[in-house]
Amino acid sequence: MRVDLNADAGESYGVYAYGHDRELFPLVSSVNLACGFHGGSPSRMREGVALAKTHGVAVGAHPGFPDLVGFGRREMALSPEEVYADVLYQIGALYAFLRAEGLPLHHVKPHGALYLKACRDRETARAIAEAVKAFDPGLPLVVLPGTVYEEEARRVGLRVVLEGFPERAYLQNGQLAPRSLPGSWITDPKEAARRAVRMVLEGKVEALDGGEVAVRAETLCIHGDNPNAPQVAKAVREALEAEGVAVQAF
Amino acid sequence: MRVDLNADAGESYGVYAYGHDRELFPLVSSVNLACGFHGGSPSRMREGVALAKTHGVAVGAHPGFPDLVGFGRREMALSPEEVYADVLYQIGALYAFLRAEGLPLHHVKPHGALYLKACRDRETARAIAEAVKAFDPGLPLVVLPGTVYEEEARRVGLRVVLEGFPERAYLQNGQLAPRSLPGSWITDPKEAARRAVRMVLEGKVEALDGGEVAVRAETLCIHGDNPNAPQVAKAVREALEAEGVAVQAF
Amino acid sequence: MRVDLNADAGESYGVYAYGHDRELFPLVSSVNLACGFHGGSPSRMREGVALAKTHGVAVGAHPGFPDLVGFGRREMALSPEEVYADVLYQIGALYAFLRAEGLPLHHVKPHGALYLKACRDRETARAIAEAVKAFDPGLPLVVLPGTVYEEEARRVGLRVVLEGFPERAYLQNGQLAPRSLPGSWITDPKEAARRAVRMVLEGKVEALDGGEVAVRAETLCIHGDNPNAPQVAKAVREALEAEGVAVQAF
Amino acid sequence: MRVDLNADAGESYGVYAYGHDRELFPLVSSVNLACGFHGGSPSRMREGVALAKTHGVAVGAHPGFPDLVGFGRREMALSPEEVYADVLYQIGALYAFLRAEGLPLHHVKPHGALYLKACRDRETARAIAEAVKAFDPGLPLVVLPGTVYEEEARRVGLRVVLEGFPERAYLQNGQLAPRSLPGSWITDPKEAARRAVRMVLEGKVEALDGGEVAVRAETLCIHGDNPNAPQVAKAVREALEAEGVAVQAF
Repeated sequence: MRVDLNADAGESYGVYAYGHDRELFPLVSSVNLACGFHGGSPSRMREGVALAKTHGVAVGAHPGFPDLVGFGRREMALSPEEVYADVLYQIGALYAFLRAEGLPLHHVKPHGALYLKACRDRETARAIAEAVKAFDPGLPLVVLPGTVYEEEARRVGLRVVLEGFPERAYLQNGQLAPRSLPGSWITDPKEAARRAVRMVLEGKVEALDGGEVAVRAETLCIHGDNPNAPQVAKAVREALEAEGVAVQAF
Repeated sequence: MRVDLNADAGESYGVYAYGHDRELFPLVSSVNLACGFHGGSPSRMREGVALAKTHGVAVGAHPGFPDLVGFGRREMALSPEEVYADVLYQIGALYAFLRAEGLPLHHVKPHGALYLKACRDRETARAIAEAVKAFDPGLPLVVLPGTVYEEEARRVGLRVVLEGFPERAYLQNGQLAPRSLPGSWITDPKEAARRAVRMVLEGKVEALDGGEVAVRAETLCIHGDNPNAPQVAKAVREALEAEGVAVQAF
Repeated sequence: MRVDLNADAGESYGVYAYGHDRELFPLVSSVNLACGFHGGSPSRMREGVALAKTHGVAVGAHPGFPDLVGFGRREMALSPEEVYADVLYQIGALYAFLRAEGLPLHHVKPHGALYLKACRDRETARAIAEAVKAFDPGLPLVVLPGTVYEEEARRVGLRVVLEGFPERAYLQNGQLAPRSLPGSWITDPKEAARRAVRMVLEGKVEALDGGEVAVRAETLCIHGDNPNAPQVAKAVREALEAEGVAVQAF
Repeated sequence: MRVDLNADAGESYGVYAYGHDRELFPLVSSVNLACGFHGGSPSRMREGVALAKTHGVAVGAHPGFPDLVGFGRREMALSPEEVYADVLYQIGALYAFLRAEGLPLHHVKPHGALYLKACRDRETARAIAEAVKAFDPGLPLVVLPGTVYEEEARRVGLRVVLEGFPERAYLQNGQLAPRSLPGSWITDPKEAARRAVRMVLEGKVEALDGGEVAVRAETLCIHGDNPNAPQVAKAVREALEAEGVAVQAF
């Protein structure tokens, strides 16, 4: 058994520090590096790539909406053509830093509101998938299982990588529980670790609204900007390895 | 005999139109496409690449200072590390659109104040050259002959491409005449064409301060944002071809 | 009888020209000047204010979403607090240029997607109105009649100014016809002028879906970025004045 | 005896936190709030104004170069007209938040590279002073004594407020020691406090290159982004008050 642990990273911008890159990189197997639109300035992206190289972590592109002040967390009414162009631009920007360091571009995972919009807006999903394919048809795209985003990524012919969220509560219908619901966020590292292990070993987890829910996950997301992100990553990784699950990039 | 005719292009940004891309692309053999920092939004860059494909024009990256409101024409005190990262970022961004269209990245030519700063600041010049080399050691870099910019590009081991300016007056010492000098700008298309031919066939041109000046040029720059840029491009091209000089990308 | 003719203006940005300010300012009685978020750089705002002073045109602030590349035409999921802060910021920025020229800030009219969102999202409408009130409780706010935007502006206690669109088709229910509908856009200057006169004199106009629709309008919008905007403004103004309607700021 | 203690603040941007506003505001008598160009997003500016209101701290505008990624620390070749427009824009933006809270705009102090450029470039200095005067001829401008910046501010007729730097070493000629010189930066809170007291009580301090240097200071700058900024502010304030110097805004 094996699974990937991914975290968003490289989201600092100029003098502005963000996240816990130095603590997290040694603990995860892949990172999604911001590409300058919601976070990540060129010099900070370069730092992120260097750090990934040091720790042997696989690097994916983490394109977001062009909204630095909102950190890409505010949905924007971009046309599919605009999504396509923005995603392609950001992939290329990150690719350059990887190429300069002799590292491959490992995958793509959209950020924040772009990821969430893709999960329910078919045109956005397809535009993202088409941009990835236009850059490299073999480039994996990380998706939320059971969404139109997954469907469109498959339809376009990409290799999709299913993502699970040990820190987020699920509903019986397989969706993530809205953040407004009490209990939607798991902050205890041990509990997150327990859920991660269950997702990988049993392919399911307890649902917030009762019963259990199937969770297919090839990569588990650690929210890198949580205050205790390094603790969560450490707990999840150790729990997985204690059960014999190898933590490695897909 | 042959020479390249290049023009800056793709500098529109969102709803903001700039330059004369549609008229110019059929007349030049290469374009330098803006990469989003001084101009050129992702959708407009995509348009520029598509237009270049239609007309069979070679496409280079045209990185600039991160100064949209100043159109990259205001010098900025970036560290060499910042120049390196900014240039690498922009090269990658444009590369993605080219790759999506199956086109090669043909060259790099910095924009405006970045180009001018490279001509007299060795560290900036080297940072640009190192970024180009880091992306692709075989990627040609367009330089102004006789400057530290040329020297550093050669020292880094890049293929340098020497640029001449038929619309700009030269001084005896080989430098471009400052724009503040009367006569520094040649606006008559016929005169620009005459000078272009002389640069290519004789390797020299009249200097503004008397006598002649040697001009080594493998590519001639047409300033795409001049009101009569298409007329200049047409006149230069026709004059060159009338003399048996082939206009084609290096 | 009198009515105001307003046009969006000052939307150029750095080297990027936009709209027809020089032709339009002599023809309208008020302008809505962009404030730097969707368009309008500081130097261009200063130009717009100077032009308004020359022509004796009343100046309002024209705040938009923070989306230069999308020209503020793409809806963004800003919280009410973010709308409030963004609008207040932009009002102040424009106010400074007016104060420097000894001109009053005449009104506020949101731009593009922000205006449209306010028309149907009560929280956005209220946030805009609260920002205007916080800056100056006596500052008029231009609204689309019959919307939650009008309701909230009144509830906050602002002076509301009702806006009509002689270049846009209306539906029987009083709403603007969606731009996707054939005939939704009136491009003939004479026809726009005829409709403007009817709106002012009779308070109604033909509906696109049959019959007539009441149109309450204290200010008529001329879309300053249409290619024939100056012709439309001229035709509307002349037709109004020929009917004895004074064109002057509210 | 009295003196003002000022600190740069409000420089956070969206999700990006910066500085030590919450710890510093209770310790200083005035703050210079970023205005969105080098730092400070609208929502964060609003926060800063609210915090200043809570603590009864005087608020000045802190305009910078339009360079968020460089935090306004990189010199830019803006024309005087561009400086004027950028400064005026930023003053107005901050003013709006103050006006909404019923607070006065207390002063203006430029940020980073703009401040430093003003100290040695007469045209930049005059453009800043003219912008301040255009907004409000009675608005004080904080300057470095003995520079062309001070001269131009006086020539324009502004009230100038002289600034001293207890955390920075001075040279005998009255200039700040370049940061590259060993000892140019005083990091020990007690030593900074001792120097602050000496500046205020004796009007002089030891020079880095030997002897003493006269320091005229009506306001003392605490560098709010230093890791120990709150400790320095506390030590300086307590030392001043222990000597009977009142810490209050000018």
